[in-house]
Amino acid sequence: MTLLGTSIINGAAVASSSATFTAVNPATSSPLAPPFHEATLGDLDNAAQAAALAFDSYRRTTPVQRAQLLERIATEIDALGDSLIQRANAETGLPEARLAGERGRTTTQLRAFAALITDGSWVDARIDRAQPERKPLPRPDIRRMLRPIGPVLVYGASNFPLAFSAAGGDAASALAAGCPVVLKAHPAHPGTSELVMQAMSTALVACGLPPGTVSLIQSSLTEISTALVQHPLIQAVGFTGSLGAGRAIYNAAAARPTPIPVYSEMGSINPVFLLPGALAERGTAIAEGFVASLTLGVGQFCTNPGVVVAIASPHLDAFLAAATALVTKAAPGSMLYEGIRRRYDSGIAALAGRAGVALAAQASQPADPARTQAGARLYRVSAATFLADAHLREEIFGPSAIVVVCSSAAEVEAVARIIPGQLTATIHAAPGDLGASGALADILVQRVGRLLWNGFPTGVEVCPAMVHGGPYPATTDARSTSVGTAAIERFVRPVCYQNAPQDLLPPELQNANPRGIWRTVDSTLTREPLL
Amino acid sequence: MTLLGTSIINGAAVASSSATFTAVNPATSSPLAPPFHEATLGDLDNAAQAAALAFDSYRRTTPVQRAQLLERIATEIDALGDSLIQRANAETGLPEARLAGERGRTTTQLRAFAALITDGSWVDARIDRAQPERKPLPRPDIRRMLRPIGPVLVYGASNFPLAFSAAGGDAASALAAGCPVVLKAHPAHPGTSELVMQAMSTALVACGLPPGTVSLIQSSLTEISTALVQHPLIQAVGFTGSLGAGRAIYNAAAARPTPIPVYSEMGSINPVFLLPGALAERGTAIAEGFVASLTLGVGQFCTNPGVVVAIASPHLDAFLAAATALVTKAAPGSMLYEGIRRRYDSGIAALAGRAGVALAAQASQPADPARTQAGARLYRVSAATFLADAHLREEIFGPSAIVVVCSSAAEVEAVARIIPGQLTATIHAAPGDLGASGALADILVQRVGRLLWNGFPTGVEVCPAMVHGGPYPATTDARSTSVGTAAIERFVRPVCYQNAPQDLLPPELQNANPRGIWRTVDSTLTREPLL
Repeated sequence: MTLLGTSIINGAAVASSSATFTAVNPATSSPLAPPFHEATLGDLDNAAQAAALAFDSYRRTTPVQRAQLLERIATEIDALGDSLIQRANAETGLPEARLAGERGRTTTQLRAFAALITDGSWVDARIDRAQPERKPLPRPDIRRMLRPIGPVLVYGASNFPLAFSAAGGDAASALAAGCPVVLKAHPAHPGTSELVMQAMSTALVACGLPPGTVSLIQSSLTEISTALVQHPLIQAVGFTGSLGAGRAIYNAAAARPTPIPVYSEMGSINPVFLLPGALAERGTAIAEGFVASLTLGVGQFCTNPGVVVAIASPHLDAFLAAATALVTKAAPGSMLYEGIRRRYDSGIAALAGRAGVALAAQASQPADPARTQAGARLYRVSAATFLADAHLREEIFGPSAIVVVCSSAAEVEAVARIIPGQLTATIHAAPGDLGASGALADILVQRVGRLLWNGFPTGVEVCPAMVHGGPYPATTDARSTSVGTAAIERFVRPVCYQNAPQDLLPPELQNANPRGIWRTVDSTLTREPLL
Repeated sequence: MTLLGTSIINGAAVASSSATFTAVNPATSSPLAPPFHEATLGDLDNAAQAAALAFDSYRRTTPVQRAQLLERIATEIDALGDSLIQRANAETGLPEARLAGERGRTTTQLRAFAALITDGSWVDARIDRAQPERKPLPRPDIRRMLRPIGPVLVYGASNFPLAFSAAGGDAASALAAGCPVVLKAHPAHPGTSELVMQAMSTALVACGLPPGTVSLIQSSLTEISTALVQHPLIQAVGFTGSLGAGRAIYNAAAARPTPIPVYSEMGSINPVFLLPGALAERGTAIAEGFVASLTLGVGQFCTNPGVVVAIASPHLDAFLAAATALVTKAAPGSMLYEGIRRRYDSGIAALAGRAGVALAAQASQPADPARTQAGARLYRVSAATFLADAHLREEIFGPSAIVVVCSSAAEVEAVARIIPGQLTATIHAAPGDLGASGALADILVQRVGRLLWNGFPTGVEVCPAMVHGGPYPATTDARSTSVGTAAIERFVRPVCYQNAPQDLLPPELQNANPRGIWRTVDSTLTREPLL
């Protein structure tokens, strides 16, 4: 597969600028050919215009047509074969097995959205029939359903070059909803993004859909990222990344003459609470699971467990001893790119310098900067220190965690109460911990998108019930999820038809219910047609 | 019923400041006793703290308990009897019959939300059961539902002293969802707000719920309105009013350290398109319906029809002649308060001064400033003028409208395309207009929350399918409605439980399905319990 090294806009390779940037293999610090042309402001205007034009026909496609597109994109991604995995490995340093798994997640997501829209009931159709005899005034016929919002801007995520980039969950859910997509590739993996874009272009052509339905913008420049969110034709934004970048995009969107929704999925420390019974019953097993979760993918998951909270006890000491041994043995790994490694190093340096923070363990093998490596770190603080120092509650992206040692259940609850919005929180509890577990769950559920028991937060299922979201600063919109089929709800809005002629109603709202979907008719769920 | 002239915070009358403001009867320009104490920054902090404290128990109430509260509030509002209607009439100049109707709408809304939460299926419960045998990894048990977001700030609307103020749709939907409410009374009708608040306080006591569940802030000061939205304990905002005020609230919320959703329902010109067949068939009847809608409540509805679009023809001339006669005969009416009347006068003065704008008709009876009156106005412009002058597409709140005369169906569509986001658009069509109607509907549906045929936009049904919302500048959040039972979705967020013990799950997610609600179990809708 040959890489063009360009943006792909409205179906065409575009190299408007002679300025280029180059991906770097983090495992070797070597640049990767080819250079990629920087997109210009004119390029992104063209991409947005093409998306708006495509919307005029794409929004009229049937669910079956859109499902075919999603299925075809999945097929074309699979058809890229090893070349995709090898390029992603070179650009990210992520192991090939992990990337193959991530590719499976990506195609699973595409197929899950295809199934959702083929079923069709997700549009939340509601029909309130006319009551011509009602007094004092007759009631008109009122019908509503969810409809696509318009062109969606998707920023690729550095830590998921496939599942949260290019054809990842944001683009898949937008395309499923009926929205064209302008993709901004993450500059750390432009080649991977181009390969996936080629698969998407092939699928668009095969399905006879307009080329402007998906465009890809290549840029390493902040001003291009900002200009994209400010473009008046963009109607919504999906982003996964740092708090700083996610908030900047949110701010830019809110300052537009016409504000738009921004779904920024950002930082999280994903606290893990270890209750006494669980520590007594299986502290060593928990330590194994915890360190595996902490170091998975060199700690570069949004759901990485960055804080452990427990009451001091001999069982906690045993957990700490086991965790310390495992962290010490953990091999350093290459991070995604040099900037992330630098931020990790400065993050742990700042943490180590704060009052009351003790280093509990670190990887014994030194990290090799030439290979962009980072090693795991485990710190220990008292609950009093954690409660007093807000810096300890900020994410350090990478394989580091803080164990917060409490003196009582009340102190555990105080720690739970001070934690800001999170993607996840976890409770490890044995049957005897049920009372404490309930009280803690009641506190945590106010702060998280997902609350889990006796597991680890890394590993996010793609399913209808998943919530990968949460109160700020976990995201800029706690009403949404970026994983699972409910992610489609981010890119639609309800539209209501009053006394519309049957011929002018969407099929979903016609009396005959030709798509056979579930509808709320006069407040009752039914799949029956109306007489 | 004695008015206290104070804020009511956490169940107590609060008059922290000696500064006061006074309501004015717009029909007489006379001040109305008593003076109302201005709330202080300390007062609103107390209200927010009380709401946050109340949330800790209110969110644990059962749907039945919350339904009882809503029903009881409705009963207590009815029990206020004529005193409520008389005070509202004195403060707003709205006729008593209209206010009695609005009271009925208010209690209907409260009861509709009570019915919705008693039914319970609105929480969108989803269960994806564990698959312990799945390869390569077992799937955990994942369940999610919608949960209340926290204390909600509601700004009373000047134009609906009952249905969009105090116990109106915003408060009713927030309370139904499980969110406490901090009400900011509109300073034009503080006494009406206090009476309704007394009804709500009585209901809270009768239902044994914490007094901080609803507090009422009385203030005429912009800095208090702004400080409220900036309070860190406030989690969402409902607002109905002008574009300027609604955008200011949105901006203040977006600039918070922790941004929150703002549902500002703002300006709309609600265009009405008259197709040739409809004009030929019933132009005079349409003129009657249009002028009645235009002048209803002195034009002070969000859905007031401010623009009429049609192709020049003898039938349009006949429509214009009929509308002109009706506008000329229309009696001026008292507007809600002096500031609104002043803005109406300056709005129509500015409009009359713009190039290409011709006055088609005005009420022959002069408006009496001492009675805060405004008279209807009808203007006429060419499509070319309308397309060229963005000022003509801005709302003038009150009984004025512009007729846009087009030369062709293409020009009608061009006008439709240039119209910004709207609450509503209307098409009048006869059977022969179906083709043109379809093309127009396809353009308009991209721009509105509600598209209606052969009716008028004033009159917004309270029902599950209603969308009273729309793209900016109609609202700051096109994904929502402020009327109808879907309004509850503004004040909730999804929360996900992974491998939770049955005892710690909310009833809606327990295997036994004790509330008998519809749930999506492994992608299938069912009310059955799980085995």
